[in-house]
Amino acid sequence: MIEVIIAEDTGFCYGVKRAIDLLNRRLKNKKEVFSLGPVIHNRLVGKELKGKGLKIVENPSQIKSELLVRCHGLHPVLIEEARKRKIKIIDATCPFLRMVQRRIRYLVANGYRVIIVGDSNHPEVKALAGFAHDEAIIIDKSSKFKVKSLEFKKVGVVGQTTINTREYHRIVTGLYKKLKPEEFLVFNTICKITEKRQREVGYLSRKVNFFLVLGSKESSNTRTLFELCRKKRPSFLIEEPSQIKEEWFTPIRDKSLTEPEGKVRVGLLSGTSTPGWLVKETADTLAKLN
Amino acid sequence: MIEVIIAEDTGFCYGVKRAIDLLNRRLKNKKEVFSLGPVIHNRLVGKELKGKGLKIVENPSQIKSELLVRCHGLHPVLIEEARKRKIKIIDATCPFLRMVQRRIRYLVANGYRVIIVGDSNHPEVKALAGFAHDEAIIIDKSSKFKVKSLEFKKVGVVGQTTINTREYHRIVTGLYKKLKPEEFLVFNTICKITEKRQREVGYLSRKVNFFLVLGSKESSNTRTLFELCRKKRPSFLIEEPSQIKEEWFTPIRDKSLTEPEGKVRVGLLSGTSTPGWLVKETADTLAKLN
Repeated sequence: MIEVIIAEDTGFCYGVKRAIDLLNRRLKNKKEVFSLGPVIHNRLVGKELKGKGLKIVENPSQIKSELLVRCHGLHPVLIEEARKRKIKIIDATCPFLRMVQRRIRYLVANGYRVIIVGDSNHPEVKALAGFAHDEAIIIDKSSKFKVKSLEFKKVGVVGQTTINTREYHRIVTGLYKKLKPEEFLVFNTICKITEKRQREVGYLSRKVNFFLVLGSKESSNTRTLFELCRKKRPSFLIEEPSQIKEEWFTPIRDKSLTEPEGKVRVGLLSGTSTPGWLVKETADTLAKLN
Repeated sequence: MIEVIIAEDTGFCYGVKRAIDLLNRRLKNKKEVFSLGPVIHNRLVGKELKGKGLKIVENPSQIKSELLVRCHGLHPVLIEEARKRKIKIIDATCPFLRMVQRRIRYLVANGYRVIIVGDSNHPEVKALAGFAHDEAIIIDKSSKFKVKSLEFKKVGVVGQTTINTREYHRIVTGLYKKLKPEEFLVFNTICKITEKRQREVGYLSRKVNFFLVLGSKESSNTRTLFELCRKKRPSFLIEEPSQIKEEWFTPIRDKSLTEPEGKVRVGLLSGTSTPGWLVKETADTLAKLN
């Protein structure tokens, strides 16, 4: 018998919900709204929004009417360009991320060398780097801290909001030891919801036999969550319930790696760009496997 | 044969020299100038200044005319008290230390919980704590970091200017790991001269058979220097040349733990409150032992 334990916090986070609401309100009034890259990292929601009139473009010159600044924020130069072309801006940057952008502006204005801990290919980090006039040093967990200490008297550090909290603190500590600057200012910019969901992996792992993580491979917070799960229990990452394979459960049930009463407990988690209804649908699909 | 290698940087540091000059100028005009506690940590210089009219008192009520704020600074409440009593203030706080005091004021004004890494009994640290309205947490190397992380969202750290730089960085790293606050601002407040003299121990240790450190036991920078020396070579701390004992050198000379040509090399260092003439006199005394 399969028992599903849904994590305490699943579905859209506040920032994603706000962005989708903003966009839906605009799409009611307008025929089309443009976005540079996907608004959030979820294929199903993306498809739905496209049906309502959202146009995903890669080049700013393709924007014809309104520009929705997506959840992860956008490079300020791109926003400026659109503004010059008299394009109306709807800012759906996650408010928590907006705070990080402001912090980077503060660091630059106060003579700090900015270090961003995160994935340099992620749209959030690309936008953040823009707020440091593209002069930030971007460091990920595999970076060897090639920066030399004597170069910088004042160093300011922020992190991509969706990375692993422990990893962030580890890198910050390493940076301090390596650089030992005159001034060292660190902001803990890891999103509180992301952090909470990361913590839940620990609690749940003591109760479940394996994890099912709902979200996209492109979503950083989903990937972080999945990595954490994998360290604790066998884990699968899926985008929608149709991707569940019954054979995943078979060996576990056969070998009775389970409770005395023969239960298999599945921990169900979701990234922050996975809608609540998809979580519910997945839980229902799992229940039907019984 | 004894060869003396004098460290590159010895004698008064800028802050001490400035304080002594200020005081001497005032003592020329006035019969008496008051200080709460010794102006600097050197017995000989203290005696000389006393002869010229400096009065060391412990209680603010004993101050009758001018108050010289000593090198290590003074608790702002004590200065305020003196001001209210219309006592003229001559501020001989080391300018570098004044910067640390300003930084603490900045931290307090911006909602940071202030942590001072240093010796809570040292006058410098007592004064620094005053700039955080006596609400700073004082941590020394033996502290077990009893502070709890959740208490503080914003943490600002400064260090006593004369402690061991490595020790400071080690404690800062430990604090970050323990507290992981929302904001963490560290100032490297270790005095550059102190740091330079600490570094010289390393260079010199490769050249000398033992160390002689000139300074007072009450002087924090001298003590730090002496501790570093002891880790590298047999070391002695003296206040003046008369304390040199010839037998210190005998076993070394007998056992020829020395150069092929039979030389004993002595590294001579001084704290920042030791006057240059005392360094010279000590070197001369050592030379006479030959």
